[in-house]
Amino acid sequence: MKDLISVDQLDQEDIDNIFKIAKEYKERFKNGEKKFHDLRGCSVLLVFFENSTRTRTSFELAGKILGADTINISASSSSVKKGETLYDTVKTLEAMNADFIVIRHYMSGAANIVAKSVKSHVINAGDGTYQHPSQALLDAFTIIEKKGALAGLKIAIIGDILHSRVARSDIKLFKKLGGEITVCGPITMLPRHAEVLGADYITTDIEDAIKDKDVVIFLRIQLERQDKPFFSSLREYSIKYGLNQERLNKMKEDAVIMHPGPVNRGIEIQSELVYGDRSLILDQVENGLFVRMAIYKYLKDLED
Amino acid sequence: MKDLISVDQLDQEDIDNIFKIAKEYKERFKNGEKKFHDLRGCSVLLVFFENSTRTRTSFELAGKILGADTINISASSSSVKKGETLYDTVKTLEAMNADFIVIRHYMSGAANIVAKSVKSHVINAGDGTYQHPSQALLDAFTIIEKKGALAGLKIAIIGDILHSRVARSDIKLFKKLGGEITVCGPITMLPRHAEVLGADYITTDIEDAIKDKDVVIFLRIQLERQDKPFFSSLREYSIKYGLNQERLNKMKEDAVIMHPGPVNRGIEIQSELVYGDRSLILDQVENGLFVRMAIYKYLKDLED
Amino acid sequence: MKDLISVDQLDQEDIDNIFKIAKEYKERFKNGEKKFHDLRGCSVLLVFFENSTRTRTSFELAGKILGADTINISASSSSVKKGETLYDTVKTLEAMNADFIVIRHYMSGAANIVAKSVKSHVINAGDGTYQHPSQALLDAFTIIEKKGALAGLKIAIIGDILHSRVARSDIKLFKKLGGEITVCGPITMLPRHAEVLGADYITTDIEDAIKDKDVVIFLRIQLERQDKPFFSSLREYSIKYGLNQERLNKMKEDAVIMHPGPVNRGIEIQSELVYGDRSLILDQVENGLFVRMAIYKYLKDLED
Repeated sequence: MKDLISVDQLDQEDIDNIFKIAKEYKERFKNGEKKFHDLRGCSVLLVFFENSTRTRTSFELAGKILGADTINISASSSSVKKGETLYDTVKTLEAMNADFIVIRHYMSGAANIVAKSVKSHVINAGDGTYQHPSQALLDAFTIIEKKGALAGLKIAIIGDILHSRVARSDIKLFKKLGGEITVCGPITMLPRHAEVLGADYITTDIEDAIKDKDVVIFLRIQLERQDKPFFSSLREYSIKYGLNQERLNKMKEDAVIMHPGPVNRGIEIQSELVYGDRSLILDQVENGLFVRMAIYKYLKDLED
Repeated sequence: MKDLISVDQLDQEDIDNIFKIAKEYKERFKNGEKKFHDLRGCSVLLVFFENSTRTRTSFELAGKILGADTINISASSSSVKKGETLYDTVKTLEAMNADFIVIRHYMSGAANIVAKSVKSHVINAGDGTYQHPSQALLDAFTIIEKKGALAGLKIAIIGDILHSRVARSDIKLFKKLGGEITVCGPITMLPRHAEVLGADYITTDIEDAIKDKDVVIFLRIQLERQDKPFFSSLREYSIKYGLNQERLNKMKEDAVIMHPGPVNRGIEIQSELVYGDRSLILDQVENGLFVRMAIYKYLKDLED
Repeated sequence: MKDLISVDQLDQEDIDNIFKIAKEYKERFKNGEKKFHDLRGCSVLLVFFENSTRTRTSFELAGKILGADTINISASSSSVKKGETLYDTVKTLEAMNADFIVIRHYMSGAANIVAKSVKSHVINAGDGTYQHPSQALLDAFTIIEKKGALAGLKIAIIGDILHSRVARSDIKLFKKLGGEITVCGPITMLPRHAEVLGADYITTDIEDAIKDKDVVIFLRIQLERQDKPFFSSLREYSIKYGLNQERLNKMKEDAVIMHPGPVNRGIEIQSELVYGDRSLILDQVENGLFVRMAIYKYLKDLED
């Protein structure tokens, strides 16, 4: 495995190994070891065609903590503006001996094309509505950290399932790890059948979806991507699908809530619940750092 | 002291310590020691919601020289564009184990809100019209380096006193250190009374203001912030409040001039005087590097 | 030699030395030595007033591999927006003890002005239509690597000769090294006489230009700089001056093709030939890294 493009590539052993490495890094970091040398002499090129704070910063910081040299390339200040093709951009970075290319692109499948074009390790940091594998891994890692295991857990994912790369990635990974997945959202945001995405149950009724679940994941409404008509019903969305105290009370007592961020406060989750004691949102962010360090390390170790 | 938000926080001992550390760094650097390990394993996240070259570059370079990992986050390419709140942005950075968050924000009080929200050290790199403490520290350090001490010195600050975070910070810090402060500017750019900002004297007459002063600080006219009407009188401003050779001749023989930069040449200061032998402007920039290194170090040492 | 502004500055010994250092770095890098300490404790400030991926990334990565601290300053997010002069920007960077200032600017001669203003080493990463010396050096290095020597080689440069800083730099450097240079392009893109740029032959006929040449360099049509009228004849340009299989067949059997990138596929070079076995385009990119490392090292060694 040269690249991490989709959770489809990962078998149980891959996942176990990545989580084991991530856990070790986290423990060592928490014990005061703040700098590692596992990627010393490596270059990590962060090629972001979409705006991002948490994913880019997380990958950049993960690379730096491991001792890599990191370089940011954003579409807005690069030769993409000069009409260069994505293929030529990454062939150029490969020629500069890039060890890792971390790419976010608005086009589904972009990361895969890049991976096939270059010898560098390619990590998909989100491509269109297709995949966001590091997010799925950090989500699963966070659930396992909290619940001991993912196998047997009932997990609901709420929101725009159809257009979400996070949902696509989470569902596939959680299923591999033995979870039972319910997807829920407005009819316009759901596939026709749960199986299309590999989920177990599908419903438009959030009360039904969150009942008896161990984990409930709220997806971000991507205001920046939705077509205009949607906006008129934002308030309606929050009433029908948002998390409020009343709904939280109906969940299992030990149910936890998650969100890939950034949260639209008051839309997906009522403001005072975002960082409440049932929320794992900041754990997701923190674990993201260690899971991404582990992804780098795992891909690099497979070189030999 | 976890953060540096305002010069109000600093007592004489804090200031002495920061200056002592800055002086040591400067001496060691000048003796060829170009790299330090005091911040090794630390992450410095530079979150700039306003454009900046000198302050951002200075904080970034200061962090790197101390061995920290630095990461730039600008409002224009971050999830701020996705509607994320400032609070959520910094909670996310804290969750990534950010050791330092250096923030510049257009809103007065923003840095304080951030500081109260996170465990990371927060350094205010300028917030609205409120504070810019690292600028005040480097200004005081530069004056002391040149004049031996600040106590007893007569200092004039010329320009848009009312809207200047530099003026607010300088006045408070200089007073703590025993300076006597006169503020001067057009009536529309002055508070009603000198005491409002803690200054000693107030005047609209520059000839009066600069007479017998040891230090004269010219503030930048923030063309990018002024409302349109102001522009019609830019030339008038330079005539009434700008530094020219004639005015320089009327100052004390050993009076020095300062400016936080970037200078509007020909407006606040006549072009040929900007880097003249009476100007400490480039000393301010250079000392900024060492003072910022000292700020990092001082906040970090207080952890233990 | 404090700076690298133009290939004019370089004598045979300089060039030999730079190439010797670049070759050594490349060999050591290829043998697994990925990190060097030659620039440890140095700061490299990359000041780019024009968009760039390959040149900026190459200089940044070259600096990092050598152990320098690198900082990006782009015109769009800097105090340039506040109306600061280029002179003041670089005086400020110098005052921060910048060891190297790498500058790209849209104005011919900008790098030279900067170099004369500061004590820092200044490297011209492209200024207007004037010079791009690191490109010329990496081009020559790549040719020598492939052909053994540049002396005696026949080289054609095809495209907008008149407005190309690459052409200007290449011609001068190749002549110093004993090459014979033919320039070719539409009449509107050529000087009146070859000698104006120091070339040997001039022609508007590409068939004539590429015949019997050892190296053919295709320049980028700078769509972003051309005035509108030009666009109507893009297709015409590609027919008259673009490389296609038929033209490649008419070249010498061991002739190689080059391009500074990014390529406008289908305009200067037919898409399937861009990375064909006659193309040195990716070698140019890779060698760019080592040549730039060598430039840093060479300028630094001359300090002592």
